[in-house]
Amino acid sequence: MNTNPTLWSTHELRFHADDSTLANPFAEVQLSLRLTHAERVYELAAFYDGEGTWKARIMPDALGEWEWLTTSNLPSLHGMSGRFLCEPTLPDTHGPVRVEQGAHFRHVDGTRHLSFGTTCYAWLHQPEYRQEQTLQTLRTSPFNKLRFCIFPKWYDYNRGEPDPHVFEQSKDGSLDFMRPNLSFFRLLDKRLGELASLGIMADIILFHPYDNWNYSKMGQAADDAYLRYVIARYAAHPHIWWSLANEWDVIGSKQLSDWERYREIIMEADPYQHLCSIHNCMRNYDHSKPGLTHVSAQRIDTCRTTEDTGHYLKTYHKPVVWDEVGYEGNIQHGWGNLPATELVRRYWEGMVRGGYVGHGETYAHPDDILWWSHGGILHGTSAPRIAFLRKIAASCPSHGIDPLESDWDVPIGGQRDTWILRYLGVNQPSWRSIRLPEGGIFEIDVIDTWEMTVTRLPGTYSGEVRVPLPGKSYMAVLARRCLT
Amino acid sequence: MNTNPTLWSTHELRFHADDSTLANPFAEVQLSLRLTHAERVYELAAFYDGEGTWKARIMPDALGEWEWLTTSNLPSLHGMSGRFLCEPTLPDTHGPVRVEQGAHFRHVDGTRHLSFGTTCYAWLHQPEYRQEQTLQTLRTSPFNKLRFCIFPKWYDYNRGEPDPHVFEQSKDGSLDFMRPNLSFFRLLDKRLGELASLGIMADIILFHPYDNWNYSKMGQAADDAYLRYVIARYAAHPHIWWSLANEWDVIGSKQLSDWERYREIIMEADPYQHLCSIHNCMRNYDHSKPGLTHVSAQRIDTCRTTEDTGHYLKTYHKPVVWDEVGYEGNIQHGWGNLPATELVRRYWEGMVRGGYVGHGETYAHPDDILWWSHGGILHGTSAPRIAFLRKIAASCPSHGIDPLESDWDVPIGGQRDTWILRYLGVNQPSWRSIRLPEGGIFEIDVIDTWEMTVTRLPGTYSGEVRVPLPGKSYMAVLARRCLT
Repeated sequence: MNTNPTLWSTHELRFHADDSTLANPFAEVQLSLRLTHAERVYELAAFYDGEGTWKARIMPDALGEWEWLTTSNLPSLHGMSGRFLCEPTLPDTHGPVRVEQGAHFRHVDGTRHLSFGTTCYAWLHQPEYRQEQTLQTLRTSPFNKLRFCIFPKWYDYNRGEPDPHVFEQSKDGSLDFMRPNLSFFRLLDKRLGELASLGIMADIILFHPYDNWNYSKMGQAADDAYLRYVIARYAAHPHIWWSLANEWDVIGSKQLSDWERYREIIMEADPYQHLCSIHNCMRNYDHSKPGLTHVSAQRIDTCRTTEDTGHYLKTYHKPVVWDEVGYEGNIQHGWGNLPATELVRRYWEGMVRGGYVGHGETYAHPDDILWWSHGGILHGTSAPRIAFLRKIAASCPSHGIDPLESDWDVPIGGQRDTWILRYLGVNQPSWRSIRLPEGGIFEIDVIDTWEMTVTRLPGTYSGEVRVPLPGKSYMAVLARRCLT
Repeated sequence: MNTNPTLWSTHELRFHADDSTLANPFAEVQLSLRLTHAERVYELAAFYDGEGTWKARIMPDALGEWEWLTTSNLPSLHGMSGRFLCEPTLPDTHGPVRVEQGAHFRHVDGTRHLSFGTTCYAWLHQPEYRQEQTLQTLRTSPFNKLRFCIFPKWYDYNRGEPDPHVFEQSKDGSLDFMRPNLSFFRLLDKRLGELASLGIMADIILFHPYDNWNYSKMGQAADDAYLRYVIARYAAHPHIWWSLANEWDVIGSKQLSDWERYREIIMEADPYQHLCSIHNCMRNYDHSKPGLTHVSAQRIDTCRTTEDTGHYLKTYHKPVVWDEVGYEGNIQHGWGNLPATELVRRYWEGMVRGGYVGHGETYAHPDDILWWSHGGILHGTSAPRIAFLRKIAASCPSHGIDPLESDWDVPIGGQRDTWILRYLGVNQPSWRSIRLPEGGIFEIDVIDTWEMTVTRLPGTYSGEVRVPLPGKSYMAVLARRCLT
């Protein structure tokens, strides 16, 4: 018997039936639950988990009593019902993340969420010890979102055969796209649980182009069945973000109509309306479409990267998450050989303009183990600077850093009148004149974003202030209003 | 009696008349010469130089016999005539610079001109010892063009009173814009001669907005008389470039029609068709207009600077000279606090794309002497790197570096099939795969543009080559075809 679930936990119901006569229980059986609560009614799909077992995963989003009732084309699963009591959340449980104020994120329990993602595209398809190492690295990292693919990756540095595959494999090696491989999905269950315990969002990439096994051209029926299976299995996990694609515009086998359909399937099948986005290579999807909660951007221009945050905020009125701005590393590709200084600069440029920026790392490695795809350990020097930035961003009041009226040469962000951050980029002024909002008394911090030092100027300030600076690149100036 | 002039030298004729009855000989007397040669006929204006003397400066542009004949509204100057023989050029004399191939420069004698400018806006209005020091600095610098204003400058760090003024000053302090101050113009004569002897082009800025004495609002009649005076006095100097304005769009007192008129006056009055441009602040003038020989650009975007070279080349089909891309320095303004690394990066980005880039320096100084405006000495570290770049650019055959088909992340320039330069910017690859043109055998240099080292890879190469790199920023790779 299940114990009572808590608010925003993942509550699992199990159903059993004889599947010995079924050719493919994944495809042949539909089982859904109707959930009823005083304030809420919705349907969700159960999923087949092998050995005559179906599971329904529920994320109760209201306290009190819930009832459920099954509908199925398999008579033995039809018309079952039950009830459970949803109890208050456990400590340190914040529930899923939602969009706030059109540009920011907050958990449903009111906890602000500042997104600091990183990327290990194919970590699920690495040996177990490396997966464990990846989790260990994440544990002490500044990152609270991991961007990764369900499907394995075929690309430079990624030429291995996955084990397990995401679908069952016939003796001839071909994959049966209508039969999820439960070895894989149980592994994913486990890894998602571990990410949850680290407080890390799982930004699950549903489709991507770097393929050697036809995952990117399964066809409409298999695509849709796969999507519905993943949603049924994982939508009840509070830390899930859906990423429709990595580089949607590079997948030649799909039409725009396919992406529209996927987006609609998620809107219809995910009762919890998790965050959902679609990531580009050279061409942006229309992020204004319904169901897309935020912009997941790869920089398109080699010069303007996160400096375009304001443009995207104005265009889409949705949070801007730069999931790919180039990675710290030294491989031959321009997207994977940024010095740490440049990645950290792009972080600050994006954050001060009201966006969120993601990390990745691609240092050449004797065994071709690159964090960006394989996970493992970090070799670079940007992560501690990102931790430093995260701490500073967390000190901004209200919902986070908004773009403020800026100088032509210096972007300004924060909260008008109370917390005002200027980021000076590569420029190296020996001083800067800043004007503080009328009527306020401010403390001023001179921040060396690279050396990770904060120097409080002596005293308090108002009006026009000449701020002395060390004549170095990568400085920021933070003015904070004193409480009176 | 004048000795015979040489080709492309400045040949001066002097005329004398009683000016004791004239209220303003500058304004009242028109004196022009008609020059006749077997292959050429043109008119040029003489100019008043005080004490009853008028001078005509001629730059003979064809060998052999020339005749001249005066026209004047002053009877004693009218109808005079003479002849002279133009002899071959002296050694090290190359004549004026012309546009070549729509994107490059060459002296009329066939010597290629790679433009490497610097900027000392108000050097003429500094004490004499500093002017001498500026020339001394230029002597050992990599720069072959000096960009400077005729009018004095009023701006941050520039709050002094000029002496001499460009026009005669009344006792009440006001300037008589119809009376050039000959003390000033004789100084300019001298300084132009010294620049010529250093092989440095004089990029003369005719108007600019940073004014405390009404130079920027003299009115149409005075503007035009001033322009005609400057042209009459200096057009016969082979190393003159005309710059209609510094930041034309910031001079609120002038209309677009004024700029059109200035441009037309130069086209009409300068018989030698010197290079002529107009420099912007935030808004480009239409550089496609007749009379403008090249684009004199200030970067408009804070992110895309010299990376826009290709865009300008395609738009205007004229050489692109980035006269202002930000200066090396540490003052508070974003245009004047670049680290040397960033200025040098902008140089390489512009050059590899087929443009030319200018230098400036704005380090804060205890006596407010900043190279950018005052001249003096250089304090920064970009100049030797620019000298290094100039040497490499000079090794490109033909008319210079053309933009070549580039990678998305790496600009490529040079001469197709023979001299192929890749610039890697801040990116730090540990290797790069490059494809060499079919059928050629190449030597490959790995260039550290910051450390100023060139490392020749052992042997020769063809086809696809994996070039090992040190995993540092600011590298370039040059492939040069071997002679066979």
